[in-house]
Amino acid sequence: MTQLPYSVIRLKPKADARKIRHGAPWVFDNELVLDRRTKAISKGEIVLLEDADRAPLGLVGFNAESRISGRMLERNVNVPVDVAWFKAKLSKALEMRERLYSEPFYRLVHAEADGLPGVVIDRFGDTVVLQPNAAWAEMKLDALCEALLGLGGITTILKNAAGRARGLEGLDDVSAVLAGVAPSGPVPVKMNGATYMADLTGGQKTGIFFDQRDNQAFAAQLSQGADVLDVFSHVGGFGLAALAGGATSALAVDGSAPALELATEGAKASGVSERFETRVSDAFDALVALAEEGRTFDVVICDPPAFAPSKKALDAGLRAYERIARLASVLVKDGGYLGLCSCSHAADLSKFRAASSRGIGRAGRTSQLIHTGFAGPDHPLMPQLAESGYLKALFYRL
Amino acid sequence: MTQLPYSVIRLKPKADARKIRHGAPWVFDNELVLDRRTKAISKGEIVLLEDADRAPLGLVGFNAESRISGRMLERNVNVPVDVAWFKAKLSKALEMRERLYSEPFYRLVHAEADGLPGVVIDRFGDTVVLQPNAAWAEMKLDALCEALLGLGGITTILKNAAGRARGLEGLDDVSAVLAGVAPSGPVPVKMNGATYMADLTGGQKTGIFFDQRDNQAFAAQLSQGADVLDVFSHVGGFGLAALAGGATSALAVDGSAPALELATEGAKASGVSERFETRVSDAFDALVALAEEGRTFDVVICDPPAFAPSKKALDAGLRAYERIARLASVLVKDGGYLGLCSCSHAADLSKFRAASSRGIGRAGRTSQLIHTGFAGPDHPLMPQLAESGYLKALFYRL
Repeated sequence: MTQLPYSVIRLKPKADARKIRHGAPWVFDNELVLDRRTKAISKGEIVLLEDADRAPLGLVGFNAESRISGRMLERNVNVPVDVAWFKAKLSKALEMRERLYSEPFYRLVHAEADGLPGVVIDRFGDTVVLQPNAAWAEMKLDALCEALLGLGGITTILKNAAGRARGLEGLDDVSAVLAGVAPSGPVPVKMNGATYMADLTGGQKTGIFFDQRDNQAFAAQLSQGADVLDVFSHVGGFGLAALAGGATSALAVDGSAPALELATEGAKASGVSERFETRVSDAFDALVALAEEGRTFDVVICDPPAFAPSKKALDAGLRAYERIARLASVLVKDGGYLGLCSCSHAADLSKFRAASSRGIGRAGRTSQLIHTGFAGPDHPLMPQLAESGYLKALFYRL
Repeated sequence: MTQLPYSVIRLKPKADARKIRHGAPWVFDNELVLDRRTKAISKGEIVLLEDADRAPLGLVGFNAESRISGRMLERNVNVPVDVAWFKAKLSKALEMRERLYSEPFYRLVHAEADGLPGVVIDRFGDTVVLQPNAAWAEMKLDALCEALLGLGGITTILKNAAGRARGLEGLDDVSAVLAGVAPSGPVPVKMNGATYMADLTGGQKTGIFFDQRDNQAFAAQLSQGADVLDVFSHVGGFGLAALAGGATSALAVDGSAPALELATEGAKASGVSERFETRVSDAFDALVALAEEGRTFDVVICDPPAFAPSKKALDAGLRAYERIARLASVLVKDGGYLGLCSCSHAADLSKFRAASSRGIGRAGRTSQLIHTGFAGPDHPLMPQLAESGYLKALFYRL
């Protein structure tokens, strides 16, 4: 065997090497022999992982500061992690997105499941927003950018360093323009027949959520000739899709005035301004107020932020989901539709469904569950981490 | 209160009346006071259900022979279960299907969730196949048929009495033509851009499975320019949808020659005969044989019958799903797609996914899970019974 130019880290004898051989993507700090030598390895360095018997397991991105100390990059230790390696990963990811989406707006890379651990890349035409949320990726940014620009069709790379995950890796939160020129204003994004306006430099996350595309498409199918209420609308997610699908009207509610301004711009760009209305308000307050005003809708969608981001917050989160379901049910016409979403990791499908169904029942409504959706295929999952599929959307008919 | 013209059945003091008030659709035999009087109530009679304190809970279809002794029909005891009542249920069910589907081919009534406990109705243009799988529905067939014919657009009603559930209710298995004239041959069914041929009088279930429509649409999206293998194809379910979606070729495998003959007729009707091939074979044998022939495909779909129909059969069933996944993985090209389906109640999503992922891993393949699908919205669920959502489809990229 040729001498490989890598530092070596080693599993403890008790660590489960088989799990890693069978595809587990992560090595935790307590599974590794952490001596003075390994602790001296610089953050983000690519190292050779061996089992306790010194058999090689693969090349991993190493970070002694993170609980996830090693992220598996390449099981063939003779394959270097270079521009060509990145290009192969990106091309494979691109092939699937181009097969599924007619326009170049999608999540291009969804971290581990696309073979680039900790790396998230969203594509907006010729511009990508890159989140290098693991130290190894931060170290390899140049090679990654070269590979991205080499794909063809991508000219601008914006680095978004605002992700919470970077803190866990001991990385800074300084965003930057890595290639091309940052767009001077909101960028039009085409999804489900609507045009959304995304603020790629100042917005929440990366300016728009691609993960709800399929659920928004389903809501649009229900919305022909319907009066639609879109609560926690952000930049118009469900509301604009519904209008593009033939809704008679859509009212978008959000606590953020800047988000709703983008929604209004999106409505203009989609040619549906006349049927679109916004209300800046706390969502719970708005649901109560709309009931007091005697308003009802054919379709109501609630897509709140994560109410149960952690196990500790689970009980309170489920109560909040139940409350949303109860307040929203009151606003749905008989025979109308209610879409309830959760992006909470801690609230699994079964718990979220129980809370939602309970809320509907407490509003005195009976219901059918007609559709359960998840994040779209541009957000693939590693089978090993599939339980973590965070996004759930439940569509009820009342 | 007016005297109601119903026999009365009563919950035992220990039975959970609240559960029924909150929407539970069933009353089990061990929850009821079963005295000589109640046992004398004729099978399928509509009776008044009371709690132990004689407070009315609703009108239920009663069957002392079934473990599910009572099926909740109407909570307002002053509303009679007559033609108008059936028509209201059918109209509500129809409204959703017409909203979602451009052609009149769908499951029109999915039992409890559509308010007609034990009643399944599939629609094929002007013809419906009706499965009255509960005794009360058998007793009310005339009213149900009158309501169906009154909807407009439906002229022929075929009764399919082959369902296993009828045995549990003590009902016969004699099918019949209840209205109109039975079609003299297979009926064309339009789904996902393809035309399927359904044998409404002699076929498995009701001749075609509407429940896979959305999953077949997803497979079709993946199949542009692809060589597709459709295992357990029945009348061409995934294969014809893939060809309509632009697949280069599709090979349909099934153990039933008559089913594949219908698939071939469907291919002709869809104008895709030249790209369609069939192979009559046991599916496991075919997977092994194709590997020996060195065949590979861009997209492989396996939609087997229920391998784990009961809890007792769960372990063996999961092993069968794992084996299917392992054998099918070998046939998928690098970067290609594998769709694995289960219609087993006993194997829940998490268990089925684990078995499938294990099989893929044992074939030495790594994978991304890109999509999880269920039965379509014309198969709604009662929230109380949502755990029982039997159909699961997992799409992997290898």
